[in-house]
Amino acid sequence: DFLHALSEVKPAFGADDSELEDAIPYGIIHFSQSISAILNDGMLYVENVRQQERLRHMSVLLHGPPASGKTALAAHVAMKSDFPFIKIITPASMVGFRDEVAKKDHLHKIFTDAYKSPLSLLIIDNIERLIEWNPVGPRLSNSILQALVTLLQTPPPKGHRLLILATTSQLPVMEQLDVTTAFDRQIRVPAVQNTREMEAVLAESGTFESPADVNEVLNRVREYTSSERVGVGIKTILTTAETARLSAQPAEWFAEQIAGQINRYNPYGERVAMGE
Amino acid sequence: DFLHALSEVKPAFGADDSELEDAIPYGIIHFSQSISAILNDGMLYVENVRQQERLRHMSVLLHGPPASGKTALAAHVAMKSDFPFIKIITPASMVGFRDEVAKKDHLHKIFTDAYKSPLSLLIIDNIERLIEWNPVGPRLSNSILQALVTLLQTPPPKGHRLLILATTSQLPVMEQLDVTTAFDRQIRVPAVQNTREMEAVLAESGTFESPADVNEVLNRVREYTSSERVGVGIKTILTTAETARLSAQPAEWFAEQIAGQINRYNPYGERVAMGE
Amino acid sequence: DFLHALSEVKPAFGADDSELEDAIPYGIIHFSQSISAILNDGMLYVENVRQQERLRHMSVLLHGPPASGKTALAAHVAMKSDFPFIKIITPASMVGFRDEVAKKDHLHKIFTDAYKSPLSLLIIDNIERLIEWNPVGPRLSNSILQALVTLLQTPPPKGHRLLILATTSQLPVMEQLDVTTAFDRQIRVPAVQNTREMEAVLAESGTFESPADVNEVLNRVREYTSSERVGVGIKTILTTAETARLSAQPAEWFAEQIAGQINRYNPYGERVAMGE
Amino acid sequence: DFLHALSEVKPAFGADDSELEDAIPYGIIHFSQSISAILNDGMLYVENVRQQERLRHMSVLLHGPPASGKTALAAHVAMKSDFPFIKIITPASMVGFRDEVAKKDHLHKIFTDAYKSPLSLLIIDNIERLIEWNPVGPRLSNSILQALVTLLQTPPPKGHRLLILATTSQLPVMEQLDVTTAFDRQIRVPAVQNTREMEAVLAESGTFESPADVNEVLNRVREYTSSERVGVGIKTILTTAETARLSAQPAEWFAEQIAGQINRYNPYGERVAMGE
Amino acid sequence: DFLHALSEVKPAFGADDSELEDAIPYGIIHFSQSISAILNDGMLYVENVRQQERLRHMSVLLHGPPASGKTALAAHVAMKSDFPFIKIITPASMVGFRDEVAKKDHLHKIFTDAYKSPLSLLIIDNIERLIEWNPVGPRLSNSILQALVTLLQTPPPKGHRLLILATTSQLPVMEQLDVTTAFDRQIRVPAVQNTREMEAVLAESGTFESPADVNEVLNRVREYTSSERVGVGIKTILTTAETARLSAQPAEWFAEQIAGQINRYNPYGERVAMGE
Amino acid sequence: DFLHALSEVKPAFGADDSELEDAIPYGIIHFSQSISAILNDGMLYVENVRQQERLRHMSVLLHGPPASGKTALAAHVAMKSDFPFIKIITPASMVGFRDEVAKKDHLHKIFTDAYKSPLSLLIIDNIERLIEWNPVGPRLSNSILQALVTLLQTPPPKGHRLLILATTSQLPVMEQLDVTTAFDRQIRVPAVQNTREMEAVLAESGTFESPADVNEVLNRVREYTSSERVGVGIKTILTTAETARLSAQPAEWFAEQIAGQINRYNPYGERVAMGE
Ligand SMILES: Nc1ncnc2c1ncn2[C@@H]1O[C@H](COP(=O)(O)OP(=O)(O)OP(=O)(O)O)[C@@H](O)[C@H]1O
Ligand SMILES: Nc1ncnc2c1ncn2[C@@H]1O[C@H](COP(=O)(O)OP(=O)(O)OP(=O)(O)O)[C@@H](O)[C@H]1O
Ligand SMILES: Nc1ncnc2c1ncn2[C@@H]1O[C@H](COP(=O)(O)OP(=O)(O)OP(=O)(O)O)[C@@H](O)[C@H]1O
Ligand SMILES: Nc1ncnc2c1ncn2[C@@H]1O[C@H](COP(=O)(O)OP(=O)(O)OP(=O)(O)O)[C@@H](O)[C@H]1O
Ligand SMILES: Nc1ncnc2c1ncn2[C@@H]1O[C@H](COP(=O)(O)OP(=O)(O)OP(=O)(O)O)[C@@H](O)[C@H]1O
Ligand SMILES: Nc1ncnc2c1ncn2[C@@H]1O[C@H](COP(=O)(O)OP(=O)(O)OP(=O)(O)O)[C@@H](O)[C@H]1O
Ligand SMILES: [Mg+2]
Ligand SMILES: [Mg+2]
Ligand SMILES: [Mg+2]
Ligand SMILES: [Mg+2]
Ligand SMILES: [Mg+2]
Ligand SMILES: [Mg+2]
Repeated sequence: DFLHALSEVKPAFGADDSELEDAIPYGIIHFSQSISAILNDGMLYVENVRQQERLRHMSVLLHGPPASGKTALAAHVAMKSDFPFIKIITPASMVGFRDEVAKKDHLHKIFTDAYKSPLSLLIIDNIERLIEWNPVGPRLSNSILQALVTLLQTPPPKGHRLLILATTSQLPVMEQLDVTTAFDRQIRVPAVQNTREMEAVLAESGTFESPADVNEVLNRVREYTSSERVGVGIKTILTTAETARLSAQPAEWFAEQIAGQINRYNPYGERVAMGE
Repeated sequence: DFLHALSEVKPAFGADDSELEDAIPYGIIHFSQSISAILNDGMLYVENVRQQERLRHMSVLLHGPPASGKTALAAHVAMKSDFPFIKIITPASMVGFRDEVAKKDHLHKIFTDAYKSPLSLLIIDNIERLIEWNPVGPRLSNSILQALVTLLQTPPPKGHRLLILATTSQLPVMEQLDVTTAFDRQIRVPAVQNTREMEAVLAESGTFESPADVNEVLNRVREYTSSERVGVGIKTILTTAETARLSAQPAEWFAEQIAGQINRYNPYGERVAMGE
Repeated sequence: DFLHALSEVKPAFGADDSELEDAIPYGIIHFSQSISAILNDGMLYVENVRQQERLRHMSVLLHGPPASGKTALAAHVAMKSDFPFIKIITPASMVGFRDEVAKKDHLHKIFTDAYKSPLSLLIIDNIERLIEWNPVGPRLSNSILQALVTLLQTPPPKGHRLLILATTSQLPVMEQLDVTTAFDRQIRVPAVQNTREMEAVLAESGTFESPADVNEVLNRVREYTSSERVGVGIKTILTTAETARLSAQPAEWFAEQIAGQINRYNPYGERVAMGE
Repeated sequence: DFLHALSEVKPAFGADDSELEDAIPYGIIHFSQSISAILNDGMLYVENVRQQERLRHMSVLLHGPPASGKTALAAHVAMKSDFPFIKIITPASMVGFRDEVAKKDHLHKIFTDAYKSPLSLLIIDNIERLIEWNPVGPRLSNSILQALVTLLQTPPPKGHRLLILATTSQLPVMEQLDVTTAFDRQIRVPAVQNTREMEAVLAESGTFESPADVNEVLNRVREYTSSERVGVGIKTILTTAETARLSAQPAEWFAEQIAGQINRYNPYGERVAMGE
Repeated sequence: DFLHALSEVKPAFGADDSELEDAIPYGIIHFSQSISAILNDGMLYVENVRQQERLRHMSVLLHGPPASGKTALAAHVAMKSDFPFIKIITPASMVGFRDEVAKKDHLHKIFTDAYKSPLSLLIIDNIERLIEWNPVGPRLSNSILQALVTLLQTPPPKGHRLLILATTSQLPVMEQLDVTTAFDRQIRVPAVQNTREMEAVLAESGTFESPADVNEVLNRVREYTSSERVGVGIKTILTTAETARLSAQPAEWFAEQIAGQINRYNPYGERVAMGE
Repeated sequence: DFLHALSEVKPAFGADDSELEDAIPYGIIHFSQSISAILNDGMLYVENVRQQERLRHMSVLLHGPPASGKTALAAHVAMKSDFPFIKIITPASMVGFRDEVAKKDHLHKIFTDAYKSPLSLLIIDNIERLIEWNPVGPRLSNSILQALVTLLQTPPPKGHRLLILATTSQLPVMEQLDVTTAFDRQIRVPAVQNTREMEAVLAESGTFESPADVNEVLNRVREYTSSERVGVGIKTILTTAETARLSAQPAEWFAEQIAGQINRYNPYGERVAMGE
């Protein structure tokens, strides 16, 4: 079964894959079964683009809360695809362009390049940033948005095949902008939901050395948040844990920071300005 | 009767028609009688432009929900018209232009080219995309909109005749922008409404091999949606079915995806953000 | 009486008048007495500009619902005026200009040209389109609007006389923009109001061959709309009738289309989105 | 008394005054005593600028309803001033400039020119048009507005004196934009208020030949408006009367048109869209 | 005491001070004790900038109603400071620049020039005008605003000292724009509050020749406004008095104009459009 | 312990640190224990960037009320870091750039420079000013905002490490703009809260010479504000105290000014326009 290879935690990355590797600094940890389901779906779309007659093009949106692992999962699927042309379009790769026209032209050029390969995979990371979304106004680049939506829906020329994996942490914005209807499929990437999943993450990552340390950390978290519910992205957990190690009181400091992430939202899920 | 030839499911496309052919990858399936009515009306307008004295120009808007087959039906009518000049203006053919002025000039140029033939047919696909509509703001290109509305209403020079077929999945937006009043006629393209119509689509397309397979799929759909009502575009059904075939559990996967399309809308028809 | 010549239905147009002729493809049909009144007023303004001492300039706004015959009536008055300089400014003649500055300059140039003749008449057709009005935003070209309003109110140099006939189907918008106060006079062009007036139109135009045919058509219309009230522009009636002739069931098809035009508005006169 | 010369109805205009003369085609009719009061105030400001030590600069706003005679009164005061430098800035003199920056520069240049004369008078006609005001949006040229407000408040260099007379029919807009605070003084120009004042206008202008004709006209007006109140600008009365003379029934036609002007406003003074 | 010299009414201006002198055409009249307090505070800030070690830079906002004397008071403090570099930035000095970028660059250049002197004083007059504020929209130049706020808060290079005096009659706008927080200190400049203060102004200025004349004027004002409260800027009082002298009935005319200023505001302090 | 050195009040700054020194004119006073906690956290992030394997990049937001000491604290941490590349980006260093594109490019260039050093620290001071935020509109530079948010989240190339310290006094705005989610960590910088903390500040700074003087000042403040609560930034206290020393009545003047700062807010914490 071609999906089998995906379940290893630390894939051995090839030499040319350094940009994709970079997107997965902590590997892929299987802290819940949703991770396998996501990877399975990803590979199903890879195989459709590779094999189907009339479907030589597919666009997939990975969405989920900030830091939940969207970019890492997209990079992982891309590496597993073995497609000859793989490219990741990040906000950082766009920041040097003068204005929205230049960005739009660059985006168009990358698609044109992809059309030259018989089998291409593009990752468009953080599409809210690509279209220069900001909630005040609200403002965005309509010209990049229009190009994006069009390119997502346009099949490559005959004899060419293209899979697009895009990521966003702003699904409601994308719904509102009608960008979601331009995608053929969607994949939801969840946050780490509870202390049990967090335990899996901390144990597998080896940030804290002994199970006892992990346990102390989890108890502190429960104390601070008065709950088993966590709702924090895996990236936040991993980097906070790493930072905590240099602190005078790692468990305490870790728990306090995680609780801070959670308490910024009130019990109704509304964001509360931290300065208030 | 000149309308008769239209009722064949898989028309034999001519050599020069590859762009139009491309718009109809799955042929035309007669899953309901509205399909014949649409094609009849389309050919009536073709004949009016060809034969009438004072009416040497006509603009028709095909509107309907996303993926309902608007582009395919317009392409089909165009192929049947046998007009010497046929051109399809798609968002993809516009994406390379620098800005709205360049797009507007290109649109104008295509009309000017069409005026050179005694008998021309233009398809303007997805006019909401052409005018760069996005619902936030809302924003759009007023200069393209103004040119479009003017060109829709302007007859070609004497001795020339022009039929314009435009498509949109945003009729309310077009009403709001007063674009609809610029069209002489409108044609409504419906979604696949219920499981009976879906059965016709799946059976004729041959995606699932046996009637038993089709039956299993339909039962699953009924189970997931708890209803006979479907309301999904034919393109979505056909591409989802094709993707499902590579899945481990095709019927299950197909039904789940179709249900997902439907459940994004609440019982009052309001869109529900998927991330909530 | 100089107004007498106006009452003929099909004026014999001169050779140089082809652009004006083009605006009146179906001639002028006297379906109600408001038509004579409009033409009388038009000629009164022609004579004022020609004869008065201190009033060497006048601007007149013809307004009415879409397709009610505004452009044809303005063209008819222009042809009857026998002024040495007559020019019609249409949206189509503006569509090739790059941007609003270019359009504004062109508009200014046409007025400057008109000032060179001792006696000039300008038709400015569809001023909502000239100023690039669209109801969303709302958006418009303020620079064209300002130029238009100023040029409407500016008398030509001494020894020159100018009559301006402008048309619009958006009177409320023009009121809102304070454009109407820039006009010296207004003329209201009504739609075809009821089945009696529609009978006159169909009978005089000769689209349907016998009075019996006309009768069948009218009965069908009454049936579809359940009313004697029509409220549709004469242009719509004439072109729909012509299209209907190629249909399998002309009377039925004509009535259905006319009813569709009417039913888009609810009983309170509010527009109802057709897609709902 | 220097104000005495103003009370003559038809001043004998000098040769160089043709542009000012043009602004007063029907002369100045003293239909009410407010006219003398306005002219008195105007000449008081002329004398202040001419004679005072510390006040070598003054800006005055003439405001009133459309067609009430603002431009004619400003031109009249300018002619009487005998200042060596007089210039009138009209919207028409601005229409040929490319954009707002060009207009702003031109405005600045005219002030700079005026500063070269020891004694200058500038008329800025229709400042709402100069700043490109339109009520939808609302939109205006902020850069022209800023220049205007600054130039209104800036005294010329030492040894130079400047009187500015500006006109507007949009006082509330000017209040809202804080333009009024930039003026040192304001003068209100009223409309013709009632049939008695209208009688004075018609009698003095001699448009209708005999007092009996005037009487018939007034009776018709009373009949149409069911009131003695008129509230129409003198320019409208004079041009409508002149046009009426070529009509078949002058008195009837005049009264109908005047009533139309009035009835566009409902009894609460709110404008009513004519098309409704 | 160094503040003592300030209390003289008519300071003897030096030769190079003509631009500052120009800002104080009527001298400084001590109509209330708030005037001395303002001048004292102004000189305190002058001395701080001159003498303190760590505070080599200070920005002060003079705010108060229109015509209350803000510019004259700032100019007076500047003249008394004897700083080697003094410059006043007025809206008039900015009006010739093409656009906001040019204005912003000029503003920056003036600060750069000031940094070259060891001891500099800049007056930025009328900052609402500098930033091109207008209440409709509202609109303003954000790029000038940003530069202004930054320059107000930036100390000059070491070895250089800078005092900035800015004026505004739109304090609420400045609060709203958060410009006030960019100032280190604020000084409030009041209007002439009552007839007693007005008496001081009229007596000291010598506009009306005898105390009896002044008395008559004040009685008229009381009559017109039915109150002892005045609330009008000193500049308005002085220029209106000067204009009144050429009028036929100076006391009456003066009182009427002053009452007009007051009555434009209703008893709740809300501005009432004069045309209503 | 490496955090120990931070607790000295007046650090001995190195020769190359003059720009950072400039940001701390009054040194760091430990008026409350929150100051140590802030410095401890700052150094923890310094050490993480220096030592961790996978975390070679970190962005930290210092936020707090105006004048609370954010810039000084960031500069202090930077000096203590001993990183080979340290740069502070202030609004003043941006004011000379022509427009937002130039500013954005400069920002990008500074990051590119920082990437050349193995160990870099950037202070981005006053990010609300950098993005040209103003609350009316609201307006801001979306292109700078997008670049900032992207650069904050982008790790430097391998072999390079970067710590970003940014400051803001507009946390709610940053929350609203979703800028805060781009930071890995946040540090809250509090105002001086009460008279006890104010006493520490005045005593340590030595602005007032004897403890008796400090006491008199504090008593006056209590009198004016009728409270022990202060809520004013340390910078305001220090500069007001310094200015007060040249005043005739230092204690009185200081207290009055401090009370003015506080009373601008009503008891509900809402800002009250000072001019009302
Ligand atoms: N199951 C997993 N899924 C995703 N990432 C994982 C998983 N296990 C470990 N990781 C690690 O977690 C991090 C996920 O970070 P990533 O940048 O992908 O999140 P993100 O959702 O894209 O964040 P952002 O919302 O900021 O774009 C990576 O370092 C990755 O190596
Ligand atoms: N009766 C039919 N009408 C239209 N399309 C049909 C029909 N039967 C089969 N098809 C197939 O369904 C697909 C319709 O897709 P098409 O792109 O035309 O939809 P659309 O409404 O234009 O979608 P979109 O809203 O994305 O523009 C085509 O592949 C076409 O071959
Ligand atoms: N009495 C009439 N008045 C006007 N047009 C008439 C009349 N009788 C027949 N016609 C015909 O009706 C048509 C009127 O169309 P016209 O373009 O003038 O309408 P319109 O009101 O300008 O439409 P639109 O709102 O689209 O600008 C013309 O073909 C004209 O020949
Ligand atoms: N007493 C009067 N005051 C002003 N104009 C008068 C008077 N008597 C006669 N007229 C004539 O009335 C006309 C006034 O027109 P004018 O253009 O000045 O009006 P306006 O208020 O400037 O109009 P608009 O609002 O269009 O600018 C002129 O033709 C003038 O000769
Ligand atoms: N005590 C005083 N304070 C200020 N100005 C005074 C005083 N006494 C007399 N004046 C005179 O009053 C005038 C004040 O005008 P100034 O231009 O300074 O007012 P302003 O508040 O700046 O007005 P604006 O709001 O229009 O900018 C000057 O002519 C000045 O000579
Ligand atoms: N504990 C402290 N923390 C910060 N600053 C201190 C402290 N003790 C003394 N100071 C002094 O207080 C001043 C703080 O000013 P700083 O410019 O850092 O404030 P800020 O919060 O950045 O102000 P702004 O909101 O205007 O940017 C400096 O002069 C600094 O030397
Ligand atoms: Mg990501
Ligand atoms: Mg389509
Ligand atoms: Mg028309
Ligand atoms: Mg006028
Ligand atoms: Mg001033
Ligand atoms: Mg700071």
